[in-house]
Amino acid sequence: MSSPLTVALLGGGTVGASVAQLISESADDLTARIGRELKLTGIAVRDASKPRPGVDSKLLTEDAAGLAASGADIVIEVIGGIEPAKTLIESAIANGSSIVTANKALLAAHGAHLHKLAEEAGVDLYYEAAVAGAIPLLRPLRESLAGDKVTKILGIVNGTTNFILSKMYNDGADYSVVLKEAQDLGYAEADPTADVEGFDSAAKAAILAGLAFHTNVTSDDVYREGMTKVTADDIAAAKSLGYVIKLLAIAELTDDDKGVIVRVHPAMIPVTHPLASVRDAFNAVFVEADAAGQVMFYGRGAGGAPTASSVVGDVVAAARHRITGSVGPAQSIYADLEVRPIGEAKTSYYLNLKVSDESGVLAAISNEFAKHDVSIQAVRQDGEGDAASLIIRTHEAPESRLRATVEALENMTAVREVLGVMRVEGAGA
Amino acid sequence: MSSPLTVALLGGGTVGASVAQLISESADDLTARIGRELKLTGIAVRDASKPRPGVDSKLLTEDAAGLAASGADIVIEVIGGIEPAKTLIESAIANGSSIVTANKALLAAHGAHLHKLAEEAGVDLYYEAAVAGAIPLLRPLRESLAGDKVTKILGIVNGTTNFILSKMYNDGADYSVVLKEAQDLGYAEADPTADVEGFDSAAKAAILAGLAFHTNVTSDDVYREGMTKVTADDIAAAKSLGYVIKLLAIAELTDDDKGVIVRVHPAMIPVTHPLASVRDAFNAVFVEADAAGQVMFYGRGAGGAPTASSVVGDVVAAARHRITGSVGPAQSIYADLEVRPIGEAKTSYYLNLKVSDESGVLAAISNEFAKHDVSIQAVRQDGEGDAASLIIRTHEAPESRLRATVEALENMTAVREVLGVMRVEGAGA
Repeated sequence: MSSPLTVALLGGGTVGASVAQLISESADDLTARIGRELKLTGIAVRDASKPRPGVDSKLLTEDAAGLAASGADIVIEVIGGIEPAKTLIESAIANGSSIVTANKALLAAHGAHLHKLAEEAGVDLYYEAAVAGAIPLLRPLRESLAGDKVTKILGIVNGTTNFILSKMYNDGADYSVVLKEAQDLGYAEADPTADVEGFDSAAKAAILAGLAFHTNVTSDDVYREGMTKVTADDIAAAKSLGYVIKLLAIAELTDDDKGVIVRVHPAMIPVTHPLASVRDAFNAVFVEADAAGQVMFYGRGAGGAPTASSVVGDVVAAARHRITGSVGPAQSIYADLEVRPIGEAKTSYYLNLKVSDESGVLAAISNEFAKHDVSIQAVRQDGEGDAASLIIRTHEAPESRLRATVEALENMTAVREVLGVMRVEGAGA
Repeated sequence: MSSPLTVALLGGGTVGASVAQLISESADDLTARIGRELKLTGIAVRDASKPRPGVDSKLLTEDAAGLAASGADIVIEVIGGIEPAKTLIESAIANGSSIVTANKALLAAHGAHLHKLAEEAGVDLYYEAAVAGAIPLLRPLRESLAGDKVTKILGIVNGTTNFILSKMYNDGADYSVVLKEAQDLGYAEADPTADVEGFDSAAKAAILAGLAFHTNVTSDDVYREGMTKVTADDIAAAKSLGYVIKLLAIAELTDDDKGVIVRVHPAMIPVTHPLASVRDAFNAVFVEADAAGQVMFYGRGAGGAPTASSVVGDVVAAARHRITGSVGPAQSIYADLEVRPIGEAKTSYYLNLKVSDESGVLAAISNEFAKHDVSIQAVRQDGEGDAASLIIRTHEAPESRLRATVEALENMTAVREVLGVMRVEGAGA
């Protein structure tokens, strides 16, 4: 057998340690599957003196730049964040290494740039672990569905928020209470902003949209609403109507096939939808394609071992290519679709209104919907003294028209308060 | 741009027509994704004079052997069955063509032989559509999970039987009634044997087991029980206990990591298991791996367009390889695990017994379990006159010991009748 393939690992946190462990524990299997031995040449960490159980301390180095530029066959980057990860990966590519990374923020911001460098250098750039941890998702999108036309992706891609929303649904508890619990259990960071404000989901949505629609999409292209304003009342109301509330990452083709809209926001989905039963810290991504119909991928979205599974899967793919002197498919952005604003998204709304209980109010409100060309699908009115509760479900309409309708309702004297507005997704599944 | 890549299509049935249509309708996208045009050079059918809407009649030929041997870049085989498909594929490989097929029966019987031919000839052999139609499953197993250790696969891989069992569960109807309905709706064949007796699932189980455990597994290695003996009473009893009954394809590593057991049979799974909500003609495959944890793939398992999605996805992969002069990973059977008999499978049973309602009966029965070293997890006894109904759930034990226990129970005078015995799966999920 020929000389081993060399692997440099940048990052020694939870994921890095799991990657190092998986590579060393599965050494024999990996050798058999690749056709050549993998040799870990170094692990770049912030503090090499810190004891790391199960990791060979001789491999540790604080010289990440040196390790990245060492010309290893494969450089794994699991540091996260934009810098120094970006510079290290650029340097590794310049030195002929194939790249495996789990870095969603970097890919969502500079994916096209890195893909271009990799293609020019004739090396692989893989990042299965960047979206939905252990779930094989990017390779199926990029390769298995390459003969089909994807029209929409609906994903639960953030375990922290899904844990919180599942808890709120089951316990009827408020956001702040459940957030505290999630933090105590290690499911949420001390500063939960990236998760609960949807930044993490937005980066993943950008990556998914890019692959599905053959277009370069960045985090900045993603419309983003967090889930911190979802109340226990919203969830109870949704529950009573047969819905759950999830923070969804959505990417869809516009009706004219020439644009793509990418958005992250809380939405109601029917309890019968396959995504509704995705609980706790699990992730799932639902893909609609013209020929395939509906396909769903489900599994653990985070954690050391699950993420390492995806990372090492990519290492095997890149290693096989090193041996045959080939590379996997380059970035496909030929379609170059226009990213359209959220206003053009076709959605439907649930509205919860407190209105004056007097004659003509329902007619006046219905009229306001009609004026904005928004069609009402269902209405439920309950009197409560001199006020009435009005729950309205609309048909699908462009988001801009729905927003204008809500604004007009807020200005009606008969409407005392708009208690809740929530988008509805997945009604057709 | 260089000259087109040529594609020969063997088979013009439902799947063949959908493949031809998808290739022609997506021509521009496929050209952009592959980097070169695809040109369909012929479609081999049984009767070329039969009108086929949407298919260019000039492409039709009754000379399948000639088309297979035409040296096309890619030969697609969607005829099904062992012969003439096997001979045609052998001839295509001999003429340097890469192969894309949806033929589960052929792969499950002669996969190793065809893989060997393809490897020697330096061509691709892809068959994503052979298992679970539209669901990207084989590529993720072969590539994305290549760095992990798969320990168990539980799959609903036959839409016909899942449709029948779903209907029986929802309507309380008997098998024969629902089978008739499924036949009228086109979900079941006039001769449903291949589906209801588990032959179709067994072929798919063999293919999945081979990929997951890096071992050559054929249909003959699969223990197989059909679902024709599942009664409305069995389903009602399962329902009352919080279970559904599904026909499962199961492949698992033995505890010593040195063997694999592959089996197809009806089993009870908890309603809370992700597979339990897979209804009607949908398929889903649940994979357990050491690092990834639990991963599930869900989607349409059959039908022209869904199957065509997978076929054309494989065509894109094979086409990209033709251009770069590379091939995808060859068959990986290095582990060469021993296929062990069903008796060694660790399962747990639900037993439904009619016993004499007299003192000492439960003790005698419990004693019989203890004698066979099978541990009882739960018992429910209900008196009915001089007889009692006894429902027993066992802990996991080797199937051989469970069978011996059931045999011993059948010979006890206090046991008037063994009304039902059903394996339980997925209790840990």
